[in-house]
Amino acid sequence: MTREKLFIIKLGGQVINDEALLNEALTQFRKLSGPKILVHGGGRKADEVLLAMGIKPQMIGGRRVTDEKCLEVVIMVYAGLLNKSIVAKLQQKGTDALGMTGADLNLIEAVKRPVKDIDFGFAGDIKKVNIQSLLMLLPSKVPVICSITHDNNGQLLNTNADTIAASLAVAFSGVFEVHLIYGFDKKGVLKTLVNGDEIFENINEEIFREGKLSGAFIEGIIPKLENAFDSLHKGVHSVVICHSQSIGNYGKTLFEGTVIR
Amino acid sequence: MTREKLFIIKLGGQVINDEALLNEALTQFRKLSGPKILVHGGGRKADEVLLAMGIKPQMIGGRRVTDEKCLEVVIMVYAGLLNKSIVAKLQQKGTDALGMTGADLNLIEAVKRPVKDIDFGFAGDIKKVNIQSLLMLLPSKVPVICSITHDNNGQLLNTNADTIAASLAVAFSGVFEVHLIYGFDKKGVLKTLVNGDEIFENINEEIFREGKLSGAFIEGIIPKLENAFDSLHKGVHSVVICHSQSIGNYGKTLFEGTVIR
Repeated sequence: MTREKLFIIKLGGQVINDEALLNEALTQFRKLSGPKILVHGGGRKADEVLLAMGIKPQMIGGRRVTDEKCLEVVIMVYAGLLNKSIVAKLQQKGTDALGMTGADLNLIEAVKRPVKDIDFGFAGDIKKVNIQSLLMLLPSKVPVICSITHDNNGQLLNTNADTIAASLAVAFSGVFEVHLIYGFDKKGVLKTLVNGDEIFENINEEIFREGKLSGAFIEGIIPKLENAFDSLHKGVHSVVICHSQSIGNYGKTLFEGTVIR
Repeated sequence: MTREKLFIIKLGGQVINDEALLNEALTQFRKLSGPKILVHGGGRKADEVLLAMGIKPQMIGGRRVTDEKCLEVVIMVYAGLLNKSIVAKLQQKGTDALGMTGADLNLIEAVKRPVKDIDFGFAGDIKKVNIQSLLMLLPSKVPVICSITHDNNGQLLNTNADTIAASLAVAFSGVFEVHLIYGFDKKGVLKTLVNGDEIFENINEEIFREGKLSGAFIEGIIPKLENAFDSLHKGVHSVVICHSQSIGNYGKTLFEGTVIR
């Protein structure tokens, strides 16, 4: 049986914090027809607001330490300023967007990350995704989901946006043919072994295995690819890494980006 | 034909900014059975954040002047921090809440207030309320709506929460028997002509006319009552002014508050 396609697009990197890039990315997003979901974070703007309030952002190993004051700021920035700006821009373009956190409609339940060596504070690890309410909305509405979840016990939690996108993709795979697209500020997965900015057009497990051995992948991309294969093993149809300005061409011949399948 | 009841509850005053009062108000809110909508503002917290960012809140005649920087903060505080905290608390209590601005699902379209003597900046005057999407959600979901609207041209606007509640009440009156309840930190509409804190239990247009002549109303309440009668003329069934801790008793014999009808 052919299932209907669902596009889950995560916008990251500079895209969220640059007005022109964001506008173009949303125009691209609109070109994808059928049910779709947008996921975003927005780290740099949160840092700006923290600094404006005299609070120093704390990061350990690239991950944010979210104390109580910082949690208030990330909720304000992600769920408030950025989420609602995106919703207003999409409405302007004629897309009936609905901004959400994981607390809204109890979409994403998480647990506060247990303290081991490091206390990441109010960081949430995803426990459960409840898609029923969104299934009701999806034919006509476009959810815009920011990287805030809740523990279903009254506590909001800061959660990685890539992980939210992947968890949603897996959860919806029972119903849709899910295409999970990471749009950012590079053309795709770059090849290290060639000059210029050539990208992999396709990566499967064989290419991935060989590439790891030959050193074909640039630093930092391997964990992302491992996560992509993990999503595929859990039922997601395709994972795509591309420039946010190419999203609208996905599935067409002039598409530029890396498809992992 | 008897129409189904819809409760629209606006929480104001201290209630939003006091953890214990808010929790009790939400417990009361849950006691109302059937479809219901919560509306909130949250001025004091916005002032706190503005001050923390080194920005002086500007008010003229009790109304906020919303310049660009201030707009960012009210969006962050109303649509982010306060709205999502309320949603998380309601989810904890078992109510399937959905936090929204007027931009989400294009619920409330507004126009930037024209500059006459005073430039209020990004203040929005309501133009149109689109209830179709909420009608789809209302049987099982509880919208929590903050005092941010949009102009459907990409611009978010700061809009008075009382006015939002009244506009929603009027818009839903075509479908439901709407009871518009203003919950705040007083027992109801106080009588000035008696000692203590006696309130009017009922106010109709006759009582209102006579009270205005005799000076029975305390200062500041007359415009609110005029707005209430305006809502009634436009189809709202009842307007109620009561303590946020009494909301859950509305319609029962032990209810304390002022019913305007």
